[in-house]
Amino acid sequence: MKTFDIPEILDKIRKTKPVVHHLTNWVTIYDCANIVKTLGGSPIMAHAPEEIDQIVSIASSVVLNIGTLTIDFVESMKLAARAASIRKIPVILDVCGAGATELRNRKIFELIEYAHIDIIKGNASEVANVAGRKVFTKGVDSSDVSIDLIEVAESLAKQKSCVVVITGKYDIVSDGNKTFYIKNGHGLLTCVVGTGCMVSSVIGTFAAVEKNLLNAAIGALVCFGIASEIAAEQSKGPASFKMALFDVLYGLDREKIESRMKLEKVK
Amino acid sequence: MKTFDIPEILDKIRKTKPVVHHLTNWVTIYDCANIVKTLGGSPIMAHAPEEIDQIVSIASSVVLNIGTLTIDFVESMKLAARAASIRKIPVILDVCGAGATELRNRKIFELIEYAHIDIIKGNASEVANVAGRKVFTKGVDSSDVSIDLIEVAESLAKQKSCVVVITGKYDIVSDGNKTFYIKNGHGLLTCVVGTGCMVSSVIGTFAAVEKNLLNAAIGALVCFGIASEIAAEQSKGPASFKMALFDVLYGLDREKIESRMKLEKVK
Amino acid sequence: MKTFDIPEILDKIRKTKPVVHHLTNWVTIYDCANIVKTLGGSPIMAHAPEEIDQIVSIASSVVLNIGTLTIDFVESMKLAARAASIRKIPVILDVCGAGATELRNRKIFELIEYAHIDIIKGNASEVANVAGRKVFTKGVDSSDVSIDLIEVAESLAKQKSCVVVITGKYDIVSDGNKTFYIKNGHGLLTCVVGTGCMVSSVIGTFAAVEKNLLNAAIGALVCFGIASEIAAEQSKGPASFKMALFDVLYGLDREKIESRMKLEKVK
Repeated sequence: MKTFDIPEILDKIRKTKPVVHHLTNWVTIYDCANIVKTLGGSPIMAHAPEEIDQIVSIASSVVLNIGTLTIDFVESMKLAARAASIRKIPVILDVCGAGATELRNRKIFELIEYAHIDIIKGNASEVANVAGRKVFTKGVDSSDVSIDLIEVAESLAKQKSCVVVITGKYDIVSDGNKTFYIKNGHGLLTCVVGTGCMVSSVIGTFAAVEKNLLNAAIGALVCFGIASEIAAEQSKGPASFKMALFDVLYGLDREKIESRMKLEKVK
Repeated sequence: MKTFDIPEILDKIRKTKPVVHHLTNWVTIYDCANIVKTLGGSPIMAHAPEEIDQIVSIASSVVLNIGTLTIDFVESMKLAARAASIRKIPVILDVCGAGATELRNRKIFELIEYAHIDIIKGNASEVANVAGRKVFTKGVDSSDVSIDLIEVAESLAKQKSCVVVITGKYDIVSDGNKTFYIKNGHGLLTCVVGTGCMVSSVIGTFAAVEKNLLNAAIGALVCFGIASEIAAEQSKGPASFKMALFDVLYGLDREKIESRMKLEKVK
Repeated sequence: MKTFDIPEILDKIRKTKPVVHHLTNWVTIYDCANIVKTLGGSPIMAHAPEEIDQIVSIASSVVLNIGTLTIDFVESMKLAARAASIRKIPVILDVCGAGATELRNRKIFELIEYAHIDIIKGNASEVANVAGRKVFTKGVDSSDVSIDLIEVAESLAKQKSCVVVITGKYDIVSDGNKTFYIKNGHGLLTCVVGTGCMVSSVIGTFAAVEKNLLNAAIGALVCFGIASEIAAEQSKGPASFKMALFDVLYGLDREKIESRMKLEKVK
């Protein structure tokens, strides 16, 4: 790949069907698995500590999401993250609900300390919390935060040597050196439960085949955002929108991606 | 609000986006979250005992559903119910499967003893069982019961100082003094798993913004019932019906509510 | 029933609404419940060990699926399987992910040793693994396996005195004496998460009313396969396909079944 080419990554997913291992929340677990499958990947959701190492050994990426965390479940996540680190498999952490409770903050901290996290993903208030900024999180939905999100993304990425994704009206992706805005997307995404979790799974699927994780995250956000725009045109409300989102993602092609991509370098 | 106005409650949900905390079953958890979101609320599903108090502190109502109960899970429910009681936040208990097993009966009893439940909701046989009537429950689906449901609702409501909701062909809502029939609804609701659970989440969302819990329950049942009627007109079977139900609920407005509402005072 | 008549079995489900008890995975649990309901049955998903015996006592079949197994969860499965054996209620075991990890292999072995399993169901590599053949399983998705699947199905069926179902492009069903190909189905089934799990629930629902378990499994696969063919004609991608699958299954009738059935005796 001479230059960064999103349709090529998507094509690689469809051809190689990478296994994407999840330890995720119980609310959106089906949609997380199904969006991986829709992209062409092969989802596995497994959390028994006794089998995590073997599952990770056949996976190409690991997606962690603390939406409905318990202490035991996070212990399984730690095992998965470390098994992945050892095998140089990328780990995506969705810091769902960061800032909402002390338990979440503590467990996110523990996860990041315990094993290398390759991509940290959340909405503005969640990522700001992980970065140590004092902001208020109202549940798992994004809150308006009046802080410099570019600075937050870049400094957290540098500090943790990872890629940081902040989702919102405009998504932000940074590896600490390069930072991008992805301006694709549609407002209906905020009217359906689990679209944030699905984004993490899409990122995990792209990261399973694309070693440059900044490019993987960008490709994932661009494709998901474009699919949401096309789906919105075909839908009568949030439920038909969600159905169309999966149908469109399944059929997404180079023409649609290249004609609609709104990627902007920040610095 | 001079008089009881359902569209105004719906409007308040959409404007204030109340957090509705759930400890619910693992089968319909996504639909429960998604229906709150579709109405304009902000669902949280969290059950780790270590964070329940903090989650309740940002919530405006708590919905409990024992569909896939375990002993530990009910302990978390107790913590949530008591935390809500202390903060004067309404607690809705869906007595899913009451009467099917001794475990369910005992745990419902414990929950009601441990903390104040503001709204008890179930189908005819479930609520009759909670009220101490001897009826047979075949699984989690409603059974025909040849008892006086109005009397059951009223006496249970008085005894527990709560609002009682009995769902069925005609829904019954009572606070022990006033009792209403809601005659909106559609038969396709019985062909889709989780519509009963969703009703509890809709009630929880209305109760999050409307202090008069009798009115909150009535408003929820009227809106859900009307949405089901409109959705049925647009669908080819239970799956397209379910999709339409969410789309319609998302766009429900004063005109549709006022022209279709079938509310009847019993006494 | 003079001769084997699939529409009659379907009719019996719709008339008697049998309770189908599940201990299944957390990913597809909703779809498993919902497909039983769509067929006309009454699903129960309950796993607390304290109530399993009472749940089984009102059930007409038990479906076990180890997709997201834990050690505790398999203990509950054992209780359910034995309770069902005692009551002569058929037990269906979906050996989801067999071969992927030692934990899965060991737990499947334990389940089959602990109580009689009436129907073992999996894809080619899963069932081959259970039958002791050395094949590689890549996650929970079917792998190409270059072994004689007819021989695998027949020998496993004989060895365990059960019916064996191997799903794939052509499904295979054997009781050790008689073996059939079911050639209904559609490629889109492989693009949606959970269709394999749903098949097990459909088999469980047919087995709840049809004592000849070979016929029950065949009937289930024929109906599911035909529904998928009709659904594919109506859909724009995997998500609209899935919705149509449920709608079509709900309305499936004798004419559609008899005109489309592709059942072939192997020996």
